[in-house]
Amino acid sequence: MKYNGKKYTSLWFENGIAKIIDQTLLPEEFKIIDLRSSDDIIDAIKSMKVRGAPLIGVAGAYGVYYAFKESGDDHQRLNNKITALKNARPTAVNLQFAVDLVYEHALNSNTEDPSEDALFKADELYKSEIKACKRIGEYGYTILRELNNNGSVNVLTHCNAGWLATVDHGTASAPVFEAVSRGMDIHVWVDETRPRNQGGKLTAWEYYHEKISHIVVTDNAGGLLMQNGDVDIVITGADRIALNGDTANKIGTYLKALAAYDNNIPFYIAAPISTIDFGILSGKEIPIEIRSEDEIKFEKGVPLTHTPSPALNHGFDITPARLITGFITEKGIFTAEQLKGLKKI
Amino acid sequence: MKYNGKKYTSLWFENGIAKIIDQTLLPEEFKIIDLRSSDDIIDAIKSMKVRGAPLIGVAGAYGVYYAFKESGDDHQRLNNKITALKNARPTAVNLQFAVDLVYEHALNSNTEDPSEDALFKADELYKSEIKACKRIGEYGYTILRELNNNGSVNVLTHCNAGWLATVDHGTASAPVFEAVSRGMDIHVWVDETRPRNQGGKLTAWEYYHEKISHIVVTDNAGGLLMQNGDVDIVITGADRIALNGDTANKIGTYLKALAAYDNNIPFYIAAPISTIDFGILSGKEIPIEIRSEDEIKFEKGVPLTHTPSPALNHGFDITPARLITGFITEKGIFTAEQLKGLKKI
Repeated sequence: MKYNGKKYTSLWFENGIAKIIDQTLLPEEFKIIDLRSSDDIIDAIKSMKVRGAPLIGVAGAYGVYYAFKESGDDHQRLNNKITALKNARPTAVNLQFAVDLVYEHALNSNTEDPSEDALFKADELYKSEIKACKRIGEYGYTILRELNNNGSVNVLTHCNAGWLATVDHGTASAPVFEAVSRGMDIHVWVDETRPRNQGGKLTAWEYYHEKISHIVVTDNAGGLLMQNGDVDIVITGADRIALNGDTANKIGTYLKALAAYDNNIPFYIAAPISTIDFGILSGKEIPIEIRSEDEIKFEKGVPLTHTPSPALNHGFDITPARLITGFITEKGIFTAEQLKGLKKI
Repeated sequence: MKYNGKKYTSLWFENGIAKIIDQTLLPEEFKIIDLRSSDDIIDAIKSMKVRGAPLIGVAGAYGVYYAFKESGDDHQRLNNKITALKNARPTAVNLQFAVDLVYEHALNSNTEDPSEDALFKADELYKSEIKACKRIGEYGYTILRELNNNGSVNVLTHCNAGWLATVDHGTASAPVFEAVSRGMDIHVWVDETRPRNQGGKLTAWEYYHEKISHIVVTDNAGGLLMQNGDVDIVITGADRIALNGDTANKIGTYLKALAAYDNNIPFYIAAPISTIDFGILSGKEIPIEIRSEDEIKFEKGVPLTHTPSPALNHGFDITPARLITGFITEKGIFTAEQLKGLKKI
């Protein structure tokens, strides 16, 4: 998508090097940095220079390429690197999925340099993620078109599930981009999404540069907006979806799903099939990352709380399937009950 | 209550001058300032140097004293000042209630100097607010005692309804202070409460100085904490309660009430009877204040969002009566249905 009128993806591979937009510097600074090793990839994921479940997956995939290159014939070393990549962040399943996919492909190859097979597979994943998000946009657009109410639709979203969180198009944002490109009048309420404010910083930045109507609100505001009839649909991304449809996403998503349910507003999860964890039956099995309390206490060193008081920083919560109207994927729109019928890709 | 071991109230009248703790400087700086005119009072309310529905009421009461002193025989001038006081903030009803109470008392007096009658009535209100909060604590304590679960109770609260928001004891905090003073083991989850972070800054500061176990969390986190069984009860304050029990309180309260309901956790409003607006039938009639978008965008000049994007800052939302287990008042604990039976004091 566009920044200052020029097209970008959030990550790309060029001349043997993975390049990313450093998302910790946005929106103040647009800086492209090189990730030149598996350690660079791990560091970028942990520090959230790359973030968003689908993008973390693709970053991890290129990490496997580096891991093969760095390990030569040392299988123990390779194994350790693969494990470290998969553990860089615990909640999103896309990372583990992508790392396994690329790793197994390269391991089973018969060529002399398995790192080249890993790179081939990572490139393939990169392209398929872009295509998947484009398809999510097209399917999601059909929902927005149906809601079309006096020619305009008000969407509420939480966190950043935009193109920065994927490689391009985004997940929750893809239907918005698609609908606007087809001439629909869409307005987006953007939850700021504490403590990292990925909504207020990144989603707002994306919509601003795509010239899409949007307003930032506190995470507290969505309930009132829905009570007031100012929200037609809620769309968020997902970090991991259990087989029963329970969905882990950025902390606070559950509260918005409750409010949507209470106000008879459709609540959709937009995510590629790779976000479904076919190995777990319900949300209870999804591990929830706990991050540093300093993310709550400070913004660039400025205290936001009474800092001698402790803070606790869970990164995600679980939205029960019963609150989710449907899942917008690259294969179509499904209810929670239909997820079991899908196949791992 | 205590700051650094010394007892304070959040406002007091001494040698002809109303004194307050400037709440915009907390928790970094503890500064007492003088309010020497009705304009000073209005400015302090608008800028949130004094805040919290019950405290705003008492501040407004002393404002009426100043208004009489400043107006002499000029009734038009007096009227304008009274109107300005009542309009300093629109959502809390206590302000209008207190200003009317003191104004009418002084108007109807037969003494030579009605300002002295106003001062007498303001002092009376000051004392009765302290007593009311103490009683709220005692009634609320009985609820906490019943919940007593292996000797400890986990409370979640939103915003600051502590002693800083009243004159002393607080409303939502009063049951906690009372229970801890009686030896109960209480832990409090403190919502940071964006955009002004009165929870993370003021409530945390209060509990810290009262040595009460507490942890600050983002406004997004309460749902997960409840899903995890880490919350036994939610208690918040209120800015205005309609006759049917619908309650206006700091934005985001509604989302916590939904989560409490979804997890079978009792949700109580703690507020003095003066918070009930006997003139309105439901929450739909309560005006919701919209504050500056800069409260969302900046913290001490540091940007928190992509600042070229617009933001919208509603101050309050309405929690429907059906989600409220009960109202803890100075007259006892009531259900929404019982509110109509109460009398304006």
